Amino acid sequence: MVKVTVWNENRHEQKNPVVSEIYPSGIHGAIAGFLSEVGIDTKTATLDEPEHGLTNEVLANTDVLIWWGHLAHDEVKDEVVQKVQQRVLDGMGLIVLHSGHFSKIFKVLMGTSCDLKWREADEKERLWVVAPSHPIVEGVGEFIELEKEEMYGEHFDIPAPDELIFTSWFEGGEVFRSGCTYARGNGKVFYFRPGHETYPTYHNKEIQQVIINAVKWASPVDRKRPLYGNAQPLEKLAVK
Amino acid sequence: MVKVTVWNENRHEQKNPVVSEIYPSGIHGAIAGFLSEVGIDTKTATLDEPEHGLTNEVLANTDVLIWWGHLAHDEVKDEVVQKVQQRVLDGMGLIVLHSGHFSKIFKVLMGTSCDLKWREADEKERLWVVAPSHPIVEGVGEFIELEKEEMYGEHFDIPAPDELIFTSWFEGGEVFRSGCTYARGNGKVFYFRPGHETYPTYHNKEIQQVIINAVKWASPVDRKRPLYGNAQPLEKLAVK
Amino acid sequence: MVKVTVWNENRHEQKNPVVSEIYPSGIHGAIAGFLSEVGIDTKTATLDEPEHGLTNEVLANTDVLIWWGHLAHDEVKDEVVQKVQQRVLDGMGLIVLHSGHFSKIFKVLMGTSCDLKWREADEKERLWVVAPSHPIVEGVGEFIELEKEEMYGEHFDIPAPDELIFTSWFEGGEVFRSGCTYARGNGKVFYFRPGHETYPTYHNKEIQQVIINAVKWASPVDRKRPLYGNAQPLEKLAVK
Amino acid sequence: MVKVTVWNENRHEQKNPVVSEIYPSGIHGAIAGFLSEVGIDTKTATLDEPEHGLTNEVLANTDVLIWWGHLAHDEVKDEVVQKVQQRVLDGMGLIVLHSGHFSKIFKVLMGTSCDLKWREADEKERLWVVAPSHPIVEGVGEFIELEKEEMYGEHFDIPAPDELIFTSWFEGGEVFRSGCTYARGNGKVFYFRPGHETYPTYHNKEIQQVIINAVKWASPVDRKRPLYGNAQPLEKLAVK
Repeated sequence: MVKVTVWNENRHEQKNPVVSEIYPSGIHGAIAGFLSEVGIDTKTATLDEPEHGLTNEVLANTDVLIWWGHLAHDEVKDEVVQKVQQRVLDGMGLIVLHSGHFSKIFKVLMGTSCDLKWREADEKERLWVVAPSHPIVEGVGEFIELEKEEMYGEHFDIPAPDELIFTSWFEGGEVFRSGCTYARGNGKVFYFRPGHETYPTYHNKEIQQVIINAVKWASPVDRKRPLYGNAQPLEKLAVK
Repeated sequence: MVKVTVWNENRHEQKNPVVSEIYPSGIHGAIAGFLSEVGIDTKTATLDEPEHGLTNEVLANTDVLIWWGHLAHDEVKDEVVQKVQQRVLDGMGLIVLHSGHFSKIFKVLMGTSCDLKWREADEKERLWVVAPSHPIVEGVGEFIELEKEEMYGEHFDIPAPDELIFTSWFEGGEVFRSGCTYARGNGKVFYFRPGHETYPTYHNKEIQQVIINAVKWASPVDRKRPLYGNAQPLEKLAVK
Repeated sequence: MVKVTVWNENRHEQKNPVVSEIYPSGIHGAIAGFLSEVGIDTKTATLDEPEHGLTNEVLANTDVLIWWGHLAHDEVKDEVVQKVQQRVLDGMGLIVLHSGHFSKIFKVLMGTSCDLKWREADEKERLWVVAPSHPIVEGVGEFIELEKEEMYGEHFDIPAPDELIFTSWFEGGEVFRSGCTYARGNGKVFYFRPGHETYPTYHNKEIQQVIINAVKWASPVDRKRPLYGNAQPLEKLAVK
Repeated sequence: MVKVTVWNENRHEQKNPVVSEIYPSGIHGAIAGFLSEVGIDTKTATLDEPEHGLTNEVLANTDVLIWWGHLAHDEVKDEVVQKVQQRVLDGMGLIVLHSGHFSKIFKVLMGTSCDLKWREADEKERLWVVAPSHPIVEGVGEFIELEKEEMYGEHFDIPAPDELIFTSWFEGGEVFRSGCTYARGNGKVFYFRPGHETYPTYHNKEIQQVIINAVKWASPVDRKRPLYGNAQPLEKLAVK
């Protein structure tokens, strides 16, 4: 069975009563809650735990890591970022949510600035499915509508996604590639845009469905890591 | 549970004792055999059955169609091809094997000539995995080696695959994109190169594993087909 | 120098005075006009000419073909479509505009239904650049705004584009992948959404710039077509 | 006119007479030589110059940077790597050659280990063109044959390329994705495999042609960088 760790910065929840009211057990608690309900083995980890809760043991026991961060990207230690990157290259799935676009781990895996346009204005977002055959949209309608969300707008400075799953429409006139998959090494990465901390986005059933689907999609494939380095020939070479 | 139909032209088996010795129940029988063994609900259909065995009812009850053809691509009726194409666009998975690259259904879904170089010379093929995170290579090593196969060489006139899974090395000096995925409408397509009729390729356990994995990967996603055509606005339009 | 043929159905222009007022020399004339102005060798061809103006000689002398059609896709003869497809596979560039999404040639090259949502409601379109490094957007700002256009909405039933260049925002709440590139054989294809016949879209300088850029991008590469068919080994084969 | 800087580590040339005999003016000198011959404005820069020869002024005046490194990747200063990355995101083209796969700049832009199999055994490489419509293969035949080269084999731990241009066959039984394009921000990146220092690969006319083509392809597009950060709405928002 797939083992998930939901990582959350967990700072807004401490500072802003609006957030703690929407997410009494934190954003990580909310996400862990709906994953557990469908039988996924889920743990949580947060920034202020030792090693940010991402010890070698935790990482070794994580098939899919979910990442939410915003205020304190810089406080995430580089050695933890490196270990997470290595785990992704070794096969761990990674789901990066919303403001996690600016996390060290996402930027390191993308190689770009991951910058974008943004606006907090209680505006409507409509996430259109553009890849109807993809397992990440199983059980999801033609679009997901969120009455109030933060706007993220193009240009989103990411590599062209391997697969573009969702494109968002925003009331204020922008669009955004809001569901993007990437393979990195032996691991799979999914970026999913919605989830500003002051809105109940992670209580939305369709958003939950996407994240559940993404966990399944991002689960590691059972095979040995390729061998790298100096290699003997598999065929007899001509002498020259 | 996923329902598979294995379609085979089934002509070499009637004409060439070499083939019927390797595949006493036909190529379709061999493939259906190893799929059934792992619990997949599998039926077969062949060219010389009425409607080539692909009646509306059969197609409606097929989640993933596997296609092997070679000698008689032209005998496949256009209306059957059209129905198969429509089923793929509606969500059915399609796995096209080896000489099926020149089948009407594959050419129609690709939009290109699907032409290639070829040679029958008992030569070695080594299929290298280039997408180690993909579910189609679960349980497969770094490469699959086939002692004798027909050579297919680049340029292979296909659209760039959505995901390139395998690249083949051939003894005679050629390479080939031998495992390619495509999304078409609500359906998924996988082209897999090996399987010349005079070699026991489909008895190879790793080749079988790839086909089993591909069946799972190509299974339809459970969601409604998008709506097309004239659409009412979702937002109030300004009067101009 | 690149040689362009602008193909237009040229029917709306005969029937609808709104259209002929906006495009007195036809949509083809307007497009040929701004291409000629920048020094591109441009001719036109229309549906009602013999062989739709696309004789073997015309096609052989066309580096990039631009296609606008809408009312009469079915009147385009299949043998002409086949010849155009062959020319694309042989290296000719093809730029398909707006309602050309439903042309036979585009559907044949895509392998999908090419269906979409649509609405004629004088609404605003904003085409956002999502591939800022691409030559097709040279000289173009962050977005192109069109005060009134027909709406095309997702799901657009096309293969995932090789490169997604533009994504459109529509006033009524939809989004659309409105600039898409594809390689097919030795040729390059660009689909560009805007250009409903009752709006002066092809008089817009930025839209013209995109089409000029696309012509340059789609120009054939000077090299021999690959060889296909039976091939001698390039290396000595082991005797088995 | 496009301005190129050829960057070379230039260490093998100092240590190994085999290399300095093949490349009397260094690998950078050889590359600069054939680029200059076709009229490209080319300069060189090397590791042991101040700031590795990549001052702000040099970078600001470079449209396309070519990178060859091997022994001393670790000696390249992180702040120079960061500046080069920023220039790529701002639009500069980058061509990474051969052992540059392990350079800091390539790894940072890819987000993966960029590891691979390798072997120095004087073996034959044949680079097959798999993207015949791409400008990078203009004037190049179906394949380029190099009598002796170092082997690089899959799995090559890179993100799936935006466009796969070449795939290599090696005598010893391996294959390799040896010509790969990537967009990163406003810049374009091309990785090109051949060029081990002890072989006269950069004197090969077809290899030269590919690099000349790649310089043209990677040249910056003339447009403003997108705006990022907080953005005012382009449309009037509903009050909620």
